[in-house]
Amino acid sequence: MLKRKGLLLVVSGPSGAGKGTICKELLQKNEQIKLSVSATTRKPRNGEVDGVNYFFIEKEKFTDMIGKGEFLEYAQIYDNFYGTPKAAIIECLENGQDVVLEIEMQGAKQIKEVYPEGVFIFVLPPSLEELKSRIVGRGTETKEEIDKRFSCAFEEINQIVNYDYFVVNKDVKQSTKEVESIIVAEKNKVTRYKNNIIEKFKEEL
Amino acid sequence: MLKRKGLLLVVSGPSGAGKGTICKELLQKNEQIKLSVSATTRKPRNGEVDGVNYFFIEKEKFTDMIGKGEFLEYAQIYDNFYGTPKAAIIECLENGQDVVLEIEMQGAKQIKEVYPEGVFIFVLPPSLEELKSRIVGRGTETKEEIDKRFSCAFEEINQIVNYDYFVVNKDVKQSTKEVESIIVAEKNKVTRYKNNIIEKFKEEL
Repeated sequence: MLKRKGLLLVVSGPSGAGKGTICKELLQKNEQIKLSVSATTRKPRNGEVDGVNYFFIEKEKFTDMIGKGEFLEYAQIYDNFYGTPKAAIIECLENGQDVVLEIEMQGAKQIKEVYPEGVFIFVLPPSLEELKSRIVGRGTETKEEIDKRFSCAFEEINQIVNYDYFVVNKDVKQSTKEVESIIVAEKNKVTRYKNNIIEKFKEEL
Repeated sequence: MLKRKGLLLVVSGPSGAGKGTICKELLQKNEQIKLSVSATTRKPRNGEVDGVNYFFIEKEKFTDMIGKGEFLEYAQIYDNFYGTPKAAIIECLENGQDVVLEIEMQGAKQIKEVYPEGVFIFVLPPSLEELKSRIVGRGTETKEEIDKRFSCAFEEINQIVNYDYFVVNKDVKQSTKEVESIIVAEKNKVTRYKNNIIEKFKEEL
């Protein structure tokens, strides 16, 4: 039996494209897929649970982990640090579990540098019009914020060239199926296993 | 709407791995996938239909087509020529239809040189033991032929490095699903469309 390592799925996309909903659906349908939990130095908000929403850690501990290279990526946003701890992810992957990581594009780029065998998926809205109406539909932002988000989203689409796959998110169920197909295909890629396959057959002789 | 070109699926594998059965199942389940029909200069056998089993053509016509570069690949086996005509395939691909081509490894290699955007799939038997019992199970060959086929099959497995994907054929239905996932994933690959995607969004502004 060929031992297949887990995949690290890195999912990005402009705000409002629906990447969060796709990840949620993917996790609900596939028990063997784990969600990567980020670490942060910011204080927990009401209802946030340590180890579920984030790992809440002290700044000293965080900078210590940076020094030891224990993050796949990290960023400082104002006074707070956010990062993706490496150890838990690598352990899952070695055990054949897939890990999904929803992250903005700068973080994805850092991850690609240290873990190029990750599977980088870019979620697109069906159209810019649709994107705008989704951002407006949230009803939580001022007109100025909406305009800013929208022009950012347009700029962000250029980042697609750094990704392996795209998913045009017309319908969450359909998009999730596409992500599932990407997982199957990636697990059947010769470059992930070529020596193992040949070895496996040679052992039998 | 993003225009997606069809895919050329090139399926190979050692004799007895079950590539023919997978292709048949794939075609039955997916009407939009077409089977590539080869051309040959050999005479039709009983029951063979021109345009279905092969395009039966004269040697002069065949060598003329070679001269004009009208084959994706061709080979001479003893006195007869066999080849894959390019025009019909390209037409299907441009119309967004996928084309499946079951071919031995030398032919696949030729196709990869002229059409590297093809999707090259290698069908593996679950094990060499299983392969042997499948070859024996056909009951149509002598012991010597079986031994020869079997040692060829082992040598052929080294060719897997020239392919993009492998499918371990334990079960035809499962293997066919894996090929279908490969098709979906390939259609969502950024490298196939990156300029188109960005253009598509820019047009809307």
